Amino acid sequence: MNRPQYQLNAIVAKFGGHVVGEGVAFINQVATLEKAQAGQLTFLANNRYRAQLAATRATAIIVRSEDAELTSLPRIVCRDPYVYFAKVSAFLNPTKPIVSAGIHASAVIGEGAHIDPTAHIGPHVTLGADAKIGAGCVVMAGCSIGADTVLGADSILYPRVVVYHNCVLGQRLIVHSGVVIGADGFGIAPEAGRWLKIPQIGRVIIGDDVEIGANTTIDRGALDDTIIGNGVKLDNQIQIGHNVRIGEHTAIAACTGIAGSAIIGSHCRIGGCSGILGHIQIADHVEISSFTMIGKSIREAGTYTGIFPFSSAQTWRKNAAQVRHLAELAEQVKMLQQAILKKE
Amino acid sequence: MNRPQYQLNAIVAKFGGHVVGEGVAFINQVATLEKAQAGQLTFLANNRYRAQLAATRATAIIVRSEDAELTSLPRIVCRDPYVYFAKVSAFLNPTKPIVSAGIHASAVIGEGAHIDPTAHIGPHVTLGADAKIGAGCVVMAGCSIGADTVLGADSILYPRVVVYHNCVLGQRLIVHSGVVIGADGFGIAPEAGRWLKIPQIGRVIIGDDVEIGANTTIDRGALDDTIIGNGVKLDNQIQIGHNVRIGEHTAIAACTGIAGSAIIGSHCRIGGCSGILGHIQIADHVEISSFTMIGKSIREAGTYTGIFPFSSAQTWRKNAAQVRHLAELAEQVKMLQQAILKKE
Amino acid sequence: MNRPQYQLNAIVAKFGGHVVGEGVAFINQVATLEKAQAGQLTFLANNRYRAQLAATRATAIIVRSEDAELTSLPRIVCRDPYVYFAKVSAFLNPTKPIVSAGIHASAVIGEGAHIDPTAHIGPHVTLGADAKIGAGCVVMAGCSIGADTVLGADSILYPRVVVYHNCVLGQRLIVHSGVVIGADGFGIAPEAGRWLKIPQIGRVIIGDDVEIGANTTIDRGALDDTIIGNGVKLDNQIQIGHNVRIGEHTAIAACTGIAGSAIIGSHCRIGGCSGILGHIQIADHVEISSFTMIGKSIREAGTYTGIFPFSSAQTWRKNAAQVRHLAELAEQVKMLQQAILKKE
Repeated sequence: MNRPQYQLNAIVAKFGGHVVGEGVAFINQVATLEKAQAGQLTFLANNRYRAQLAATRATAIIVRSEDAELTSLPRIVCRDPYVYFAKVSAFLNPTKPIVSAGIHASAVIGEGAHIDPTAHIGPHVTLGADAKIGAGCVVMAGCSIGADTVLGADSILYPRVVVYHNCVLGQRLIVHSGVVIGADGFGIAPEAGRWLKIPQIGRVIIGDDVEIGANTTIDRGALDDTIIGNGVKLDNQIQIGHNVRIGEHTAIAACTGIAGSAIIGSHCRIGGCSGILGHIQIADHVEISSFTMIGKSIREAGTYTGIFPFSSAQTWRKNAAQVRHLAELAEQVKMLQQAILKKE
Repeated sequence: MNRPQYQLNAIVAKFGGHVVGEGVAFINQVATLEKAQAGQLTFLANNRYRAQLAATRATAIIVRSEDAELTSLPRIVCRDPYVYFAKVSAFLNPTKPIVSAGIHASAVIGEGAHIDPTAHIGPHVTLGADAKIGAGCVVMAGCSIGADTVLGADSILYPRVVVYHNCVLGQRLIVHSGVVIGADGFGIAPEAGRWLKIPQIGRVIIGDDVEIGANTTIDRGALDDTIIGNGVKLDNQIQIGHNVRIGEHTAIAACTGIAGSAIIGSHCRIGGCSGILGHIQIADHVEISSFTMIGKSIREAGTYTGIFPFSSAQTWRKNAAQVRHLAELAEQVKMLQQAILKKE
Repeated sequence: MNRPQYQLNAIVAKFGGHVVGEGVAFINQVATLEKAQAGQLTFLANNRYRAQLAATRATAIIVRSEDAELTSLPRIVCRDPYVYFAKVSAFLNPTKPIVSAGIHASAVIGEGAHIDPTAHIGPHVTLGADAKIGAGCVVMAGCSIGADTVLGADSILYPRVVVYHNCVLGQRLIVHSGVVIGADGFGIAPEAGRWLKIPQIGRVIIGDDVEIGANTTIDRGALDDTIIGNGVKLDNQIQIGHNVRIGEHTAIAACTGIAGSAIIGSHCRIGGCSGILGHIQIADHVEISSFTMIGKSIREAGTYTGIFPFSSAQTWRKNAAQVRHLAELAEQVKMLQQAILKKE
């Protein structure tokens, strides 16, 4: 591959910061300190990687000003090397698949569907009646988009994404393979020992600049809509129940389950394998640890955790047995306190 | 959309209850108290929504007899407004996609497969040899159904469902996108530091009136079959291991994992993100909380829970540290009790 | 079905052990003690199933030498009946789907892709530019394989598997439906209240003899690669984050989440619904219980657990309330100890 290359001087002209050392050095890719080769730009954002500085084979490095003297390599000095690296990497590695506009012959397009002529519709895609695909969209192989659904401009759907009917998806969306948007929420009512299905007639509304990881599912609303705000980032295998609302720029790690009608604030960070019960409300700027179950609303920003700490199975067995008697133990301590008090 | 509309009188003629107020009022859709518009029917099932009664713009409302005087809107009075609403909504919003019978030209049909002439087979579907699709079935885009598999009448498979070979699926099934039925169970035997694969030669047998949420997986049996009873409702991203048996009318919420050979009773309700170990047996009418791990059999109906309660990360750190010393703490309390006793 | 049948003598000639009783008995399938019929071979590996011995209708049975006299059926005596059974079953039930070599007319093959003439490419498959499919591979309906990706010989991809571009997959791989390999890892950097996407330019490298369960996701590396060692067995709905490395012959049960850059040793066994935090290291031969969160590195082989034990919801409520005051309780016990000490 003949990758295009850029001088450090050109990089700082584009992204800010300043060069210390040879500004005419050329770089064509980013890499880690450990694996970087000649022609590659690396970065130091975390002190724990300082030990790798001496041995790196990178051509140049991005550093904070306080670290600028730790290396003699050509370097870009800036305030936040990780963010800087993210921008340079995005410049060198455009996310958008390189495809040509047009509709593959094997795609099946519903009546009244409107596809912008700059969009790409891949093989074996199906598009429902009256669906709308915006300018510059890339809809890859085997995606299925329901009737009346709208996909905003410059969005990418990787292979085998399913969007049900009547959903509204924003611009610059990135949706990874296996995602299902707009399936029925889990709405059932008990009657005489059986379950009646509650039709799910709401929609899914997704804002702009959202990314959704592989095999994540977002259910349509029961009556109202399920709403994902602008800039939300969802990792893989997340489950979003019906009528959930997620505020702008919240990020959620993999395998998290969010039950129906939960309302999550903006700028939250939710760890992986966590769970949020239905009808819960979570304030803005809340951080939730991995593997934590949120069973009541959180009204204040802050970090919240609830994890049973692991230990050797043997030790766990002894301690876990006591968990089952904790209330008794607390009662015994209270009685001891009273007994002592009485003797004084 | 010109939705068909119905008078309240026609609704009660069909579904029971009685009208208070204008029985000639027309409704064409259901909605929440908060979002309902003219022409829409809403319901009051939960006292916590009473405050929204005054402001609703609904044309009519479903209420219990004890709430009949809380509003002056035209109203349907009945025993269980939520169930009543479910039935009216199902009447106004038929779940079944409107498609025409027939086989799409791009579908690939195996030798000996039998498709009822009233069934719909969508684009890019593949059907294995000798598979059978019942009357009125809707198999949407990109589904793949293995050889010898049988799908009962009036079932719906949303886009990109996969059913492996030799499975037996009931009638009126609803299967959402991304579901995988009949993949191999996790059967491996250790030999000399490596794993031997155990062929999974059982089937998946699913009863009638079952619904399966998006991206849920149900493994085929190892030797015997995996069996899902009539009326079972499964939410999204559930994992059902090989040889599991689930009794009739049990409902399981999203992200739950059920390990191999577990046997779950009828009429159970299992919360989201919960886990059930292999070979466990669970009685009928058991309720399991979200985020709870069931590590031994449950012989009696009742509600069972095991969640580490969350708190601020700081508080959690202090308490979790003690969890690792609980057995010691209990021992210390016992010694204190003896010390006190000796002094008396 | 006219299944081929074999005499016990032929089985032991092939797989070792020796026959006690009629070596000329024919068997054509394996089954459990409980369900076996005439013509079937069963096994006794676990003492708890001894009670079923008397009633089995199997034609023959695999037993350990110490159990050889518990039955009068024709029997194969060997050291490890479960492993022996696994091998006979694999012989009688070849895992590989029976398909013919060649490329289905509906498949869409990218420029420069190389497909071995002995491989099978099913309907509606898409293959990116320069992808390589090895000898004897079976790529079933609707799979999508990205540009430059390599699939080793004799691998099976079940319907609707997605592999992104530039991944390297080994030989004799079994990948079940809905699996997504090589989607972007969750790499985001905060800047001014928004998230910047970090391009994920690493690959996924998978060794030989790996099996991957339905709807599991394995993200590509951020800068370096995500690496799955030889002989690794992954169950359904597992999430593997970017840059994770899993050592050889490790087995992981369903619904487990492994966060980015975790390094897991060889020969580990990880229970279902468990979680492993990012950047954690886990030694070889570590066993982790189901539903356990590993929040720091494990340096020694052994079994590790961290599960909140379940109880009736009522009992749980009382005990869980105390978990929130555990540090206080420990403090009170310490004070009591001092008070007692002072009195002595």
